[in-house]
Amino acid sequence: MFKAIVSAETFQEVLGSVEALVEECKIHLDEDGISIRAVDPANVGMVDVHLAAEAFDMYEADGGLIGVNLVRLSDIAGMASSGDVIELELDESTGKLHIQLDGLEYTLALIDPDSIRQEPDIPDLDLPAHIVIEGRDLSRGVTAADMVSDHIALGVDDEAETFYIDAEGDTDDVHLALGRDQLIDLRAGDAHSLFSLEYLKDMNGAIDADAEVALELGEEYPVTIRFQLANGHGDVTYMLAPRIQNN
Amino acid sequence: MFKAIVSAETFQEVLGSVEALVEECKIHLDEDGISIRAVDPANVGMVDVHLAAEAFDMYEADGGLIGVNLVRLSDIAGMASSGDVIELELDESTGKLHIQLDGLEYTLALIDPDSIRQEPDIPDLDLPAHIVIEGRDLSRGVTAADMVSDHIALGVDDEAETFYIDAEGDTDDVHLALGRDQLIDLRAGDAHSLFSLEYLKDMNGAIDADAEVALELGEEYPVTIRFQLANGHGDVTYMLAPRIQNN
Amino acid sequence: MFKAIVSAETFQEVLGSVEALVEECKIHLDEDGISIRAVDPANVGMVDVHLAAEAFDMYEADGGLIGVNLVRLSDIAGMASSGDVIELELDESTGKLHIQLDGLEYTLALIDPDSIRQEPDIPDLDLPAHIVIEGRDLSRGVTAADMVSDHIALGVDDEAETFYIDAEGDTDDVHLALGRDQLIDLRAGDAHSLFSLEYLKDMNGAIDADAEVALELGEEYPVTIRFQLANGHGDVTYMLAPRIQNN
Repeated sequence: MFKAIVSAETFQEVLGSVEALVEECKIHLDEDGISIRAVDPANVGMVDVHLAAEAFDMYEADGGLIGVNLVRLSDIAGMASSGDVIELELDESTGKLHIQLDGLEYTLALIDPDSIRQEPDIPDLDLPAHIVIEGRDLSRGVTAADMVSDHIALGVDDEAETFYIDAEGDTDDVHLALGRDQLIDLRAGDAHSLFSLEYLKDMNGAIDADAEVALELGEEYPVTIRFQLANGHGDVTYMLAPRIQNN
Repeated sequence: MFKAIVSAETFQEVLGSVEALVEECKIHLDEDGISIRAVDPANVGMVDVHLAAEAFDMYEADGGLIGVNLVRLSDIAGMASSGDVIELELDESTGKLHIQLDGLEYTLALIDPDSIRQEPDIPDLDLPAHIVIEGRDLSRGVTAADMVSDHIALGVDDEAETFYIDAEGDTDDVHLALGRDQLIDLRAGDAHSLFSLEYLKDMNGAIDADAEVALELGEEYPVTIRFQLANGHGDVTYMLAPRIQNN
Repeated sequence: MFKAIVSAETFQEVLGSVEALVEECKIHLDEDGISIRAVDPANVGMVDVHLAAEAFDMYEADGGLIGVNLVRLSDIAGMASSGDVIELELDESTGKLHIQLDGLEYTLALIDPDSIRQEPDIPDLDLPAHIVIEGRDLSRGVTAADMVSDHIALGVDDEAETFYIDAEGDTDDVHLALGRDQLIDLRAGDAHSLFSLEYLKDMNGAIDADAEVALELGEEYPVTIRFQLANGHGDVTYMLAPRIQNN
């Protein structure tokens, strides 16, 4: 059993954060909210999203698991106007999800969850550097890096107490360094890792400019990227594997 | 003889409504206003537009007939800024239409009307169901249907007193039902017909979100779609032939 | 030595005016400001830009010459938000230009000036007709002309005291005539020349709608197009060679 009413904006944000990595996903419909975990086909990027029951206007579920075409579901949610709510109801007899928005009923065929790539185990890494940064600043660095390279280094300069974004192209370089006063928070620690810009761009695209984004970094370790949705009733964690540095 | 001044916005709306179906058309320049009737090459969609002399700031005509390249004429009218007027004058000696807007003079070569597809006779059908709906609601249904299918059913549920839009895709369905309170008017009667979404999308594109759109429907009959322009001094009627239902 | 701080908007305008013609250029870093002169590969259009030291928030230079990839530099400047300033500093030891905007450091590899097309000598023509026109009016004529043709005539009707833009297509024509009252200034004189619309469109794209644009025209002579930037502390001159009229 699953029946819920949620603001279109919140639902769009949840779907968008997962769509950054995959086109299909499993959604857990638990008593305390919905959860999605997914990993991209190359096993480079993972996402873990939870939207608590409190984020919904109405929420009833008892622990089901459904598979959905995210692109399709996202298109439907995208038809909502700002301020609209979306009503979701699972019809277990037909295996379809009924979606209502502003009088419009959409019947979405579900996908057999077993046919969808297995959900990843997201490792709990104890990484040395913690940074909290505004979404717009992360975005600025990612966009600039994209002008010169297809990979990007994220790191912390322990002495200077700065978080930095570096990209080295064939001829040109980009460097963004943010000190304590330009960050929301910084727990310095040696950290420097190289990442695929393609993945980071997609993840960054799902992050609001106003969001507080928590990064955890190490030396050639994955980065975790966390931010909240729906006034704190939802949270998204991305994990992105490092690229091997070829110095 | 033909000489007229009209608001750019009104003229753009008239041209746009015809451009939804054809690229060239004949325009009747009658004493009481201009009229255009056209049918698409596949004989599926027809349009009948009349813009009364009262819709113009100045209007003088004595019954001519011209052929125009609608795409070209629409591009010219599209150069006008909001609030501009367009001056039109036919030069019968050269067979050209002079178009002035904001100091710009455009000389448009006309097309021999005999070389343009014949104007359709638009049948006067006495259809059982009459619906008056806001442009934005029709648009919402058409856009949603387009996500799942290339055809769309329009119908009236006589008992429930609702107008509905249905689209059935290979896996997903869309359904929009609007009751009396969500419609501007409804004269219920058994009606259900299937239409090509491609045509309906083009017609819908010419209809303002704020427009009152009058639909007439029957059982596997064409739909007529009527709306007004220029504060009621202009009106557009589309007629769209039904698709054969393959149940 | 070169070190400067300039408003992002001004810098973008300077780069954009040159980018209308070439992708690489030499920049003279003189004591009194920067200068760029360039000619397109076909030797049809030239540009001469000067931005005075007064246009900068800070300016120090002693006469260097650098070669830059304009497209790249323009992309970087384009990352600035409205109101941002851009800091430029030449590192002569590495031959790189350091560009800072809002904390972001961009290191741009320079191009050997000798590998860039030679700067043109811009002839000082004493042309009979002088017109000063608003950017938006020039733009309107260019856009309309583009609908019918790939060349455009600019001229002055000495008797009628009008500046005109003419374009003759295979079937349709465009004519824009502006009298004294619609121009900012006019010194009439016989003038009529035909130009490639492709070039004029690119030049026009770099001119603000609000700009006062000074044109000088003759009989089958090049046109010079001048406008100012940065509150009069910068100026741009385009010169466009006429096309041979094939009457």
